Amino acid sequence: MEFFEVLRARRSCRKFKDTPIPGEVLTRVLEGANLAPSPMNRQPWEFVMVRNREFKERIFESCQRAKTMAFERSGWKWLGPYKVDFLLEAPVLVGIVGDPSRTGADRFFEGRSEGYQYACAAAVQNLLLAATDAGLGSLWFSLFDRKDLEAILGIDEGKELLSLVCLGYCDDQTPRTTRKDVNEKVTNIES
Amino acid sequence: MEFFEVLRARRSCRKFKDTPIPGEVLTRVLEGANLAPSPMNRQPWEFVMVRNREFKERIFESCQRAKTMAFERSGWKWLGPYKVDFLLEAPVLVGIVGDPSRTGADRFFEGRSEGYQYACAAAVQNLLLAATDAGLGSLWFSLFDRKDLEAILGIDEGKELLSLVCLGYCDDQTPRTTRKDVNEKVTNIES
Repeated sequence: MEFFEVLRARRSCRKFKDTPIPGEVLTRVLEGANLAPSPMNRQPWEFVMVRNREFKERIFESCQRAKTMAFERSGWKWLGPYKVDFLLEAPVLVGIVGDPSRTGADRFFEGRSEGYQYACAAAVQNLLLAATDAGLGSLWFSLFDRKDLEAILGIDEGKELLSLVCLGYCDDQTPRTTRKDVNEKVTNIES
Repeated sequence: MEFFEVLRARRSCRKFKDTPIPGEVLTRVLEGANLAPSPMNRQPWEFVMVRNREFKERIFESCQRAKTMAFERSGWKWLGPYKVDFLLEAPVLVGIVGDPSRTGADRFFEGRSEGYQYACAAAVQNLLLAATDAGLGSLWFSLFDRKDLEAILGIDEGKELLSLVCLGYCDDQTPRTTRKDVNEKVTNIES
């Protein structure tokens, strides 16, 4: 697909078909993620690919609890009936794991050390776009308890589960979200 | 350009021509950034576009000091002679500003509240890719003192300067960096 067509076609999918994703398609999506930039090219990302039903169920149950907790703390009414069944339905869940030791010079500035996290977020964005280009639906899901999922996935001590992405062929007709006019988001300091 | 061609062509440029960037090209790049995903579609990003010479000089001087400090703290030899002249040469510097109040349910989890930052990083990645698609070079620069640049740019209280990007036509022949084979970065939890 043409680049801007991919940018415009990407949207969050919350209902997936059970059609499996061919191995070569997944590999291409991961190769896309791996092309992200990172401070000093330290490539601080790793990918945990979950296809196992039992693991998906444990992730689903953990995220159900996380959702209930967020609902109680927030009082946001929409969170009550919000379903996270896509965690069971998506043929593949991808955990994006960051290595804080692979950050850049940002570590020397107070309140920073976020370089590895931003690089991992860029890798996620590449992954979502590469999935779109490959005809896949995706969801960047953030309603999780990090420590809980790290224990379930057996993430190495010192590394961090930063993001969770659902991947599969989309069966969701919800239209893509709109955006504010970008001009409302821009301040110009002209010459 | 074709999507994967853009992914592969994107690289960090550290030397820019003084050719100005046409307004419609910049607008297209910002529209690309604006298509990033965000928790609850809160679109927590804003863009400060710096074209003014005096502001570039103040940013350059601040980043020179930041570089010297990072050199002293790190002892990294390459940082001593590292030049940040691209901050003066690039026709446009883009400050990406995040609004912490526009984050998602991540705020209810201990040690999180990073949703708006990841969304802004995704917007930066879209911006870099859209720049590549438009024939522009770019650099995601992270060697800065946040509070110092926030004061220079007059960022609103409560908002945060998360990233700084240099944009312009590239005059740098350095080849793009390589990547580890993505298979070394993947763990499979199969069914």
